[in-house]
Amino acid sequence: MSPSSLDELIEALRCLPGVGPKSAQRMAYHLLQRDQRGAARLAVAMRRALEVLRHCERCNTFSEDAICPRCVNPRRDAGLLCVVEMPADLAMIEQTQSYNGLYYVLMGRVSPLDGVGPRELKLDKLLARATDGSVREVILATNFTNEGEATAHTLATLLAARGIAVSRLSRGVPVGGELEHTDIGTIAQALVERRSL
Amino acid sequence: MSPSSLDELIEALRCLPGVGPKSAQRMAYHLLQRDQRGAARLAVAMRRALEVLRHCERCNTFSEDAICPRCVNPRRDAGLLCVVEMPADLAMIEQTQSYNGLYYVLMGRVSPLDGVGPRELKLDKLLARATDGSVREVILATNFTNEGEATAHTLATLLAARGIAVSRLSRGVPVGGELEHTDIGTIAQALVERRSL
Repeated sequence: MSPSSLDELIEALRCLPGVGPKSAQRMAYHLLQRDQRGAARLAVAMRRALEVLRHCERCNTFSEDAICPRCVNPRRDAGLLCVVEMPADLAMIEQTQSYNGLYYVLMGRVSPLDGVGPRELKLDKLLARATDGSVREVILATNFTNEGEATAHTLATLLAARGIAVSRLSRGVPVGGELEHTDIGTIAQALVERRSL
Repeated sequence: MSPSSLDELIEALRCLPGVGPKSAQRMAYHLLQRDQRGAARLAVAMRRALEVLRHCERCNTFSEDAICPRCVNPRRDAGLLCVVEMPADLAMIEQTQSYNGLYYVLMGRVSPLDGVGPRELKLDKLLARATDGSVREVILATNFTNEGEATAHTLATLLAARGIAVSRLSRGVPVGGELEHTDIGTIAQALVERRSL
């Protein structure tokens, strides 16, 4: 008995990650009842993003141009290529202001449980980019989760086979971290990877 | 450095209830990367819902018609008017298949902390509906939360002043409930509101 356009909106909201039937319903009521303006804005933003956003041909991140502004910036060190999982990771590294090379964004990670293997991640595109003659070192900056580590391992193997220098972000005790409150896995890694002074 | 259409999508997603900056970012990446079809469908559903949905002139629920199909159904008992907070509550009561009267959907509840008083809830519309001559009893079926109870109390006062018979859903031990696992507030209410057999 409820209007079909309402049912369809509730159903369509479920394409959002982590949104089940109950929250989809809550969101629909909220938008229609309290924030029609926000809903209209969201519909426009979504349509526009779908129209204009594509993947940068060089670094694979979301871009409105064929090649994104970062990749064509001549003041960046084209010899360094930092591989991250998602644009959010790229943004974090940029915020450190301690990296001036280029990036490659995987837009995901190797995740066998979700059916994401090297082919689904289109690692060919990264390998072509890394071997285009300009890159002297690939820095693997995938997450230190199981899936991120597996991705880094896969990439390290593939890149080494092509004779490319590969490095990985260091693991260890976080800056400001107290040993008493650091997990033992991290401390163990920090011991193994200790650096001489 | 990130494309403005992506930023705008992330910002626009924050109009959804319970969605902060991090989840908005995650949702945007998910839609663009993994579910462009779902995103397109959502944009269409949202625009259409905004265009065609309005509030039923009689029961105030979302409707595509001026008066919703339920309110014009001649097989419903027009003498009973059940007041609920949201369309989801109406759906629950319908599922019981034990009510054949009509409804009034408040689309909210009295909530002083959120600045929602009798005026914001447009209780005038309900009072006009309840006094249109067809209603012989108003059943208050707002939630048994603090806000729902306050709403019921406000409504009971306003309706009684207009000489309308008012009732409230009973409180008590849930069907299938064991006393050992029922909260004492509910048991206390079930004692006070015990019914003679």
